[in-house]
Amino acid sequence: MRRFATTLGLVSLCFFFVFPCCRALRGRPRLLERFARPGNRAPAYQYEERYFRQSLDHFSFADLPPFDQRYLIANTGAWARPAGPIFFYCGNEGDIEWFAANTGFVWDIAPRFSALVVFAEHRYYGKSMPYGSKEKAYKNAESLSYLTTEQALADFSALLTDLKRNLSSEESPVVLFGGSYGGMLAAWMRLKYPHIAIGALASSAPILQFEDIVPPDTFYDLVSNDFKRESLSCFEAIKESWRVLETQGKDNDGLLKLSRDFHLCQNLNNTEELSDWLSSAYSYLAMVDYPYPSDFMMPLPANPIKEVCRKIDNYLDGTNVLERIFAGVSIYYNYTGNVDCFDLEDDPHGLSGWNWQACTEMVMPMSSSQDNSMFPAYDFDYAAYQDQCLQDYGVRPRPRWITTEFGGHDIETALKKFGSNIIFSNGLLDPWSGGSVLQNVSESIIALVTELGAHHIDLRASTKEDPDWLVEQRNTEIYLIKGWLYDYYQEKASYYIL
Amino acid sequence: MRRFATTLGLVSLCFFFVFPCCRALRGRPRLLERFARPGNRAPAYQYEERYFRQSLDHFSFADLPPFDQRYLIANTGAWARPAGPIFFYCGNEGDIEWFAANTGFVWDIAPRFSALVVFAEHRYYGKSMPYGSKEKAYKNAESLSYLTTEQALADFSALLTDLKRNLSSEESPVVLFGGSYGGMLAAWMRLKYPHIAIGALASSAPILQFEDIVPPDTFYDLVSNDFKRESLSCFEAIKESWRVLETQGKDNDGLLKLSRDFHLCQNLNNTEELSDWLSSAYSYLAMVDYPYPSDFMMPLPANPIKEVCRKIDNYLDGTNVLERIFAGVSIYYNYTGNVDCFDLEDDPHGLSGWNWQACTEMVMPMSSSQDNSMFPAYDFDYAAYQDQCLQDYGVRPRPRWITTEFGGHDIETALKKFGSNIIFSNGLLDPWSGGSVLQNVSESIIALVTELGAHHIDLRASTKEDPDWLVEQRNTEIYLIKGWLYDYYQEKASYYIL
Repeated sequence: MRRFATTLGLVSLCFFFVFPCCRALRGRPRLLERFARPGNRAPAYQYEERYFRQSLDHFSFADLPPFDQRYLIANTGAWARPAGPIFFYCGNEGDIEWFAANTGFVWDIAPRFSALVVFAEHRYYGKSMPYGSKEKAYKNAESLSYLTTEQALADFSALLTDLKRNLSSEESPVVLFGGSYGGMLAAWMRLKYPHIAIGALASSAPILQFEDIVPPDTFYDLVSNDFKRESLSCFEAIKESWRVLETQGKDNDGLLKLSRDFHLCQNLNNTEELSDWLSSAYSYLAMVDYPYPSDFMMPLPANPIKEVCRKIDNYLDGTNVLERIFAGVSIYYNYTGNVDCFDLEDDPHGLSGWNWQACTEMVMPMSSSQDNSMFPAYDFDYAAYQDQCLQDYGVRPRPRWITTEFGGHDIETALKKFGSNIIFSNGLLDPWSGGSVLQNVSESIIALVTELGAHHIDLRASTKEDPDWLVEQRNTEIYLIKGWLYDYYQEKASYYIL
Repeated sequence: MRRFATTLGLVSLCFFFVFPCCRALRGRPRLLERFARPGNRAPAYQYEERYFRQSLDHFSFADLPPFDQRYLIANTGAWARPAGPIFFYCGNEGDIEWFAANTGFVWDIAPRFSALVVFAEHRYYGKSMPYGSKEKAYKNAESLSYLTTEQALADFSALLTDLKRNLSSEESPVVLFGGSYGGMLAAWMRLKYPHIAIGALASSAPILQFEDIVPPDTFYDLVSNDFKRESLSCFEAIKESWRVLETQGKDNDGLLKLSRDFHLCQNLNNTEELSDWLSSAYSYLAMVDYPYPSDFMMPLPANPIKEVCRKIDNYLDGTNVLERIFAGVSIYYNYTGNVDCFDLEDDPHGLSGWNWQACTEMVMPMSSSQDNSMFPAYDFDYAAYQDQCLQDYGVRPRPRWITTEFGGHDIETALKKFGSNIIFSNGLLDPWSGGSVLQNVSESIIALVTELGAHHIDLRASTKEDPDWLVEQRNTEIYLIKGWLYDYYQEKASYYIL
């Protein structure tokens, strides 16, 4: 255990970038934030917590212990049994209660569909731990080896099949929901298990962020654009800061001074720890650049990038750039003003399993371009990436596997005549939008794109501050889902009549 | 090894039925024949034998040794590179060279499509052995545990993706072919990997022979009908024979006499061994009841059931029924007259892995009805089936898994708006036809049904004796495949033009 705790820590610290020792890890981004802190604004949805016994390996018959997968179930009373719809959220890389609290759209619309609501937790996250505990599940590469996307989809399918049988609701149509990695799971599940779910709303799902399908610098260019869009001087200050930070780190007591200036709880061991922490903030700010106050990752004001840049820009010429940067990122890490010092090792939502997933299947090449990016220039280096995974976990990634299993190259041709009933919703402020499906593939594989949307904003609860484009986007989603259900019941009715 | 060699033997002996001790195993039919003997009529197709390195478990990252999958590749010279079609046969539960020799349809039509031909061997069969040898691969439940359908499909997908990349033919459309279990694989692969193959000809593929989708007595009723159709007295003789056989087996020296009367190489240990051997013959006769001489399972005359029944019927009243039965099945087991004695343990095509598959995923419930079946009445008993698998392999079947993974219940609704470009071809003489798709699901999921066809006759090489309905069926298949390719190239061309 100790060895892996250490290496996990190392991977986490090196997560996003930046300097030479960590460059290899540039390509291991997380979809969600490691430094996030739960806020106080989460609505209190009512649900029951249940567990379902799963095979650890659905695709082999090795003698492995089963495990209990957690799921949240709600609205059973209002559900139109026996054939009412089931709204099923495909849990992603964290505690399912956190996703349930932040996916208000499902809660908002379920009553009008008289739908049963299920939020299923992803294996190896939250309380859905193989081998009985997180400690045992994350012990080593052997225990982690069943943490894969295909197994997660099989879990969802087995759970749904059993649940419907137990509820005598085999006729119930299932609609899948998911955001970010959960959105990838929802889309892939509709593709792989069309007999289990009639459609999927895949919000901010970067299913094309693999191999060479989209340019590797897409993500960081989009983050950078979000900052540049608010303020060119802010963009330039950030772009300049890395060099200053590196220089300062080399001074006598430079790391100590940086640790103090940035109010860190522990002293830095190197500048990468700090640049990682800063880079994460920028990336996640781009993801959660919502037009109203939110607390998905952290408690934040409306339009947080605007606020960060306002702080960075609001200094006299000649002020040390790192001082401006600290003021800026404090909007992200300490908007409430309650934080005394920052802990770089924090992981309140239990997202660390993503490092394993990134080292096995979810190899998303990431570069940072010289010109368009405010991050240090970097070319994705697969050999170094692989070496790091071998060192951290003793595992060799399979960088081509996801596209073999789920497709991605030339997705229009593959899906035009095949898949159906998938919504790919994206906001162009979201840096993950560049790796998603932004054009309609067919009449029923629809891309909903909003210019000002951020990471799966459509899945959030409606608020009084919602802009019109967001209200309209959600209405379109409801309209499309209604269409899927209408078609399904029509089809069924025609059988009954016959 | 020894333990499993023994238990494998036991399963094989008890394969189809009949008497009390073996009843539990009634539900473990094989799609193909264990007692088959290679004939001399196999056409000599030209191909190159190659190997491709595969992950043993595509869906986990356990530290397992890779293995080399065999595939046969042909027609590379005539292939219309770089975007010419690839005709890919999904190997089933035996040596791939045997399937290549018996799938003349692919060889016959490939030249007119300028198609590359690939026959891929299924893992754990032929020369595609994990752990380096059949002995090691079949050692125990642990070594066998990766012999699953999903892994086989992932093998095919990984092989095709790599092959196309190496040939710089990423644009080549792939058309899948498969018969029997290979047909199930072809259909499922088109459903699960639409980005890899544009269509599938699934011949005699009983994808609905699971759980309660079709009545469990379908298979044996169809076999029985094939005999009844030729001769009611033949049907009745067979129906009567089981009781006689059982009675005789209880006599002093009864087993010895039976062994002698049936020209067995070894003495019987019990009557089940003999009834299994007889039952297999009837079932496989129904499958290969072709209208011309063939040698897929065994060298056989045209319309072999007619010949068997002619023998059985061609006796004076009062002749011992077992004598008549022996004369009948000799048509099946010894048509050439070259066999001195019959070896019940024979497995020339290396099909024994099917027993493992039947004990894990491929649980196909089989009953024998009191009235319609010529086999002894028997109700499928899942508890006994499971006990036997636990005893034989120490493995617990997952009888609901196949329908969870691939669907099956209400397949029309699931696929009507989803899948495309699949042909389910079936002949109604084939007892597996009852578990296949016999009605069109949509405009491009087509059922081709022939009244007089047997097990995947359409996949066999064309002969001068082909009846008109068979010529017509194959022409329709060619027409449909042309349509898939035409659509694909049109789509591609429109991209190029844009």
